[in-house]
Amino acid sequence: MKLIRYGQPGAERPGLIDATGTLRDLSMLLPDMGPAQLNPRTLSALAAIDASRLPPVYGTPRLGSPVAGVGKIVCVGLNYADHAREAGLQPPAEPVLFMKAVTALSGPNDDVRIPPGAVKTDWEVELGIVIGTRARQVAEADALQHVAGYVLANDVSERAWQMERGGQWDKGKSYDTFAPIGPWLATVDEVPDPHAIDLWLEVNGQRVQNGSTRNFIFGVPTVVSYISQFMTLEPGDVVLTGTPAGVGLGQKPAPWFLKPGDVMRLGATGLGEQVQKCVGG
Amino acid sequence: MKLIRYGQPGAERPGLIDATGTLRDLSMLLPDMGPAQLNPRTLSALAAIDASRLPPVYGTPRLGSPVAGVGKIVCVGLNYADHAREAGLQPPAEPVLFMKAVTALSGPNDDVRIPPGAVKTDWEVELGIVIGTRARQVAEADALQHVAGYVLANDVSERAWQMERGGQWDKGKSYDTFAPIGPWLATVDEVPDPHAIDLWLEVNGQRVQNGSTRNFIFGVPTVVSYISQFMTLEPGDVVLTGTPAGVGLGQKPAPWFLKPGDVMRLGATGLGEQVQKCVGG
Repeated sequence: MKLIRYGQPGAERPGLIDATGTLRDLSMLLPDMGPAQLNPRTLSALAAIDASRLPPVYGTPRLGSPVAGVGKIVCVGLNYADHAREAGLQPPAEPVLFMKAVTALSGPNDDVRIPPGAVKTDWEVELGIVIGTRARQVAEADALQHVAGYVLANDVSERAWQMERGGQWDKGKSYDTFAPIGPWLATVDEVPDPHAIDLWLEVNGQRVQNGSTRNFIFGVPTVVSYISQFMTLEPGDVVLTGTPAGVGLGQKPAPWFLKPGDVMRLGATGLGEQVQKCVGG
Repeated sequence: MKLIRYGQPGAERPGLIDATGTLRDLSMLLPDMGPAQLNPRTLSALAAIDASRLPPVYGTPRLGSPVAGVGKIVCVGLNYADHAREAGLQPPAEPVLFMKAVTALSGPNDDVRIPPGAVKTDWEVELGIVIGTRARQVAEADALQHVAGYVLANDVSERAWQMERGGQWDKGKSYDTFAPIGPWLATVDEVPDPHAIDLWLEVNGQRVQNGSTRNFIFGVPTVVSYISQFMTLEPGDVVLTGTPAGVGLGQKPAPWFLKPGDVMRLGATGLGEQVQKCVGG
């Protein structure tokens, strides 16, 4: 299934996109699409619905984050060797973890705000994992059982704040609108192989990132299992798996960054596309 | 007011501790004590209650985190010059920020779990700030208006995970039970000066930390204003303000760390005391 949330910020309703691409409402069945709904039993009951009989949603509503009630966003840094190289860092021996504030979440096509004083705001197309059931010290072999599905994500980052303002990355990762996810949550049955997803990102029509999760240093089971040794992952938590090469910081001959008016367009196999306009503020 | 939450984990009810030290129930007025209740209007209505007429809670129930629905825990690192020195680091030019997973939250007297494989689990007594109203790019002069109150906190930290496993501190800060807060939320009227709070911590009866928020490098208004430039603080968010000298990592002649069976006891002026037993797991 392709599960979505549509409507104005803070007032989104759950829905899905059916096989014909029609957006259909689910709010008569579910209050929202969050921690209480992402479990395998609810998802399998939803999968049993003949979607063509659900009421269509007319027009083109705004899409919000396809997951409500996200408890935390845990991110893996430097998970593609080519991106580690462009950042001038060695590929890590084990996953590098950091967090984004949940207040950074936004819809897939919402404007991205360039913060006051920011000078190095950058893009990062990523595969996001959405947790479906609690994962605490799970083995790699069991890790995928805890995954509800996958989302496209842009791990927007202010590099000066991330790396030049006192050492810990979270500071440059957490501004409002720095975590667009969606358009949809693709449940696991929609994603035959999370390690064969092509990812791309364009700025003002110029292709800057072109990667594939085939080049992960650490795959999805490793990442979920690894994080679960250090903290408990709860339903609705989002794990961002790192970005391939081609971020602004890595551009040749010189790095370049986002400014108001720029437009990012990004996509991933089976996970749809996002378009974000950069605005001041 | 001294606001508390009492009951079993996940089933806590709101209450308060009155002037005589009696625990009284508030669940007939409020569903919980979280983001929807921490605003100044609700707190000022609660303050108008004659607490002696509220039903007492009999026995000695478990206390939970005095704040429900915490959206994020933002922490300031190295905010006391003496602690920066013992960690072998320069006092920072501006606040160092990192995050703890909200799943790390626990009650003030709950057991602290020493994780499997942990070898350097350490203590950090801290003043915690509880946000009452949204703070987004607020000036220092306005910052205190966004504070609902203060809590005692233990920023439990696995140093090997924090500093020897790939660079970002969050990894060693987020294990379940690594964020005991409470026993109570002292509303701002209870705390005449957040920069004159003595903090102490004992391990197995031995006093190891003895500090005062008089020695903050960055005070409460600076910290709240600063964080709000990088991310939006929401009602119920918790800010941990750093720890004074005396953590295990800084012990002379050699560092020492927690093991199962150890007991931590910590306190802060006006914010009560916590007692935690360390257990395996």
